[in-house]
Amino acid sequence: MANNFSEMIDRRHTNSVKWDVKDNELPMWVADMDFRTAPGIIKAFQDKAASGIFGYEEVPEAYFEAVQHWYATEHNWAPNTAWMRFVTGVVPTISSAVRRVSNVGDNVLVQAPVYNIFYNSIVNNGRHVLSSDLVDHDGQYAIDWDDLDAKLADPLTTMMILCNPHNPVGKVWTADELAQIGALAAKHHVTVLSDEIHGDITDAGHPYTPFASVNDVNAQNSITCVSTSKTFNVAALHAATVIVPNEALRNVVDRGINTDELAEPNSFAIPGVIAAYTTGSDWVHAMNAQVTANKQTLTQFIAAQLPELQVIEGHATYLVWIDCRHVTSDTTALADFIRAKTGLFITAGAVYGGDGHDFIRINVACPAERLQDGLNRLADGVHQFEKQA
Amino acid sequence: MANNFSEMIDRRHTNSVKWDVKDNELPMWVADMDFRTAPGIIKAFQDKAASGIFGYEEVPEAYFEAVQHWYATEHNWAPNTAWMRFVTGVVPTISSAVRRVSNVGDNVLVQAPVYNIFYNSIVNNGRHVLSSDLVDHDGQYAIDWDDLDAKLADPLTTMMILCNPHNPVGKVWTADELAQIGALAAKHHVTVLSDEIHGDITDAGHPYTPFASVNDVNAQNSITCVSTSKTFNVAALHAATVIVPNEALRNVVDRGINTDELAEPNSFAIPGVIAAYTTGSDWVHAMNAQVTANKQTLTQFIAAQLPELQVIEGHATYLVWIDCRHVTSDTTALADFIRAKTGLFITAGAVYGGDGHDFIRINVACPAERLQDGLNRLADGVHQFEKQA
Repeated sequence: MANNFSEMIDRRHTNSVKWDVKDNELPMWVADMDFRTAPGIIKAFQDKAASGIFGYEEVPEAYFEAVQHWYATEHNWAPNTAWMRFVTGVVPTISSAVRRVSNVGDNVLVQAPVYNIFYNSIVNNGRHVLSSDLVDHDGQYAIDWDDLDAKLADPLTTMMILCNPHNPVGKVWTADELAQIGALAAKHHVTVLSDEIHGDITDAGHPYTPFASVNDVNAQNSITCVSTSKTFNVAALHAATVIVPNEALRNVVDRGINTDELAEPNSFAIPGVIAAYTTGSDWVHAMNAQVTANKQTLTQFIAAQLPELQVIEGHATYLVWIDCRHVTSDTTALADFIRAKTGLFITAGAVYGGDGHDFIRINVACPAERLQDGLNRLADGVHQFEKQA
Repeated sequence: MANNFSEMIDRRHTNSVKWDVKDNELPMWVADMDFRTAPGIIKAFQDKAASGIFGYEEVPEAYFEAVQHWYATEHNWAPNTAWMRFVTGVVPTISSAVRRVSNVGDNVLVQAPVYNIFYNSIVNNGRHVLSSDLVDHDGQYAIDWDDLDAKLADPLTTMMILCNPHNPVGKVWTADELAQIGALAAKHHVTVLSDEIHGDITDAGHPYTPFASVNDVNAQNSITCVSTSKTFNVAALHAATVIVPNEALRNVVDRGINTDELAEPNSFAIPGVIAAYTTGSDWVHAMNAQVTANKQTLTQFIAAQLPELQVIEGHATYLVWIDCRHVTSDTTALADFIRAKTGLFITAGAVYGGDGHDFIRINVACPAERLQDGLNRLADGVHQFEKQA
């Protein structure tokens, strides 16, 4: 099976959350790619299916070695396998860690605009969201360090959820930035949970840096979540890995994931992840090249056809964050309008907090032909919106 | 593929929890069968594997219709599909319901000896276990109704976890017994969670009765958990269904399973369960016949070779509960001894509470040839134990 990122796969009527849309609609919203996963993973699933027995499974050492191998070869970081635990997903692990690391009523710091589900993990567990909003300087988001320092210093702030790289703005944090975040968090006794689920998806020349790999301060004060989920388009594999170098903190997390029943793999999780991390490198690099090309196509299209929009320059994720403030500051209305008029289903930015109400997020992980369809609908929708506004 | 319950499948080195044993050991402990699952499920897994895309999935109406079809045709109960929610497992759902239905410090009533993981769901969430122990009358367990009434009447008792049918004693509760439990629980405002995961596994002529099917009092005050997990030997499919006829209670459970991230299916869960419930009936009946035959073989063997043991007569589950009190009241020591001397790995009863310390539990869901090996080891082990005692 050759890698193929141009096949127009029909995902309608497959129970896909992304593709639960009307016949004329084109979904470019949730972080789910329209690409078939890596051949080695499909082979592993087929072999497991044929085995015929699907009883309780343990996580073998080979699983953790595969994770270590991937991070060593792809990201120049070889975490000790003893630091790792299998978990059924990043989001449930974030929720579990929120319950174990912070107390009811505490602040959990985030950096808005940020992945909206972080808010659920915080609020649903009776904690408060405290955002040190990222600052947008002419198309480049940055951290307001004084604000971050002050908010981490609040005695009620006991945990920070870092998005590394940052969804939805596509920012690849540098090692220096990560060291600075780590130093502030350590100074103020705030535990950092680093969600690195998008770490494998970056443009060539813009590698992501694992938070815990930067220095020992970061390592000893952090919970890192990684997964094959986004990288290999296997969101429903229900497999992720949590990495906690500090033993005491690891025991806290461990107790949480066991009480919360997140530690047991389903039948396909172990073979799937091992296949991904040991045979999937070429596929990921090819996928990244396709995503980079798609981002360039989008950027050029918008410059030419929709100069009133500004694409935020991001080198991570297959999600593009687009500033629409010259059209509207209510992108929820804009996105609803575009969907109603053209069938293009994108995400309005308000759910991510901060200045998200000025933005839309578009998922470009699809064949070039489908992307072009989406871009044409986007231009049509924005132009119609401008006329009626 | 014909159904085959005599194939000696080698499960060593497959990451199986059950088979993580030494080369000379024979595991007959955890509730996991040594039978390949139903052919329709394997086919569904293979088809899903070949599809190649494993993104976020929704639960289609066809899933709930399959559950309804199964309960209507197998158990004479057609629960409304609107009462159902998909969940990733029965145990996490029990834990979630404990957190939502009861408060920290409350009593959750169980009937020991009972499935040991119930205790974890209660204790790990800061609730207290209150047992109304089953009473053993010459090999037949029964409920002490006065004791149950008194313990349900305790104002601190807010929830009861029923095991229907009852693991480990193999008891099929009658409709009358279930009505009586339901009436007492309703009288004392105690919500009943009925774990019916073993309901499909019964001897011919001894059908199980779903708790909520008995009458409206039971239906309106209950949370029922069912799954293909035990029935089809797919513990690691991570799929189950929670059925809550009462709308207000269903909303409470629903909020819990969403906050606890139990509501999203993995890629194989939906096709697997639909295949099981729509094509698996013959396989289950054949499996049950094999299990019944194995229980008879065991009972006859023990009567002939180990008359000092008493097999509790149970018509549900593939787990046999054996009274060893004439040999020892420390079956933990007995089980350890048997394992060390013969390699047979069975479960000592103390973990189930109540009078479990007098008992062992043996899993007979294996080929007849393997069962015979186990029985020979059991006789050898008990005889050696008696000599050294």
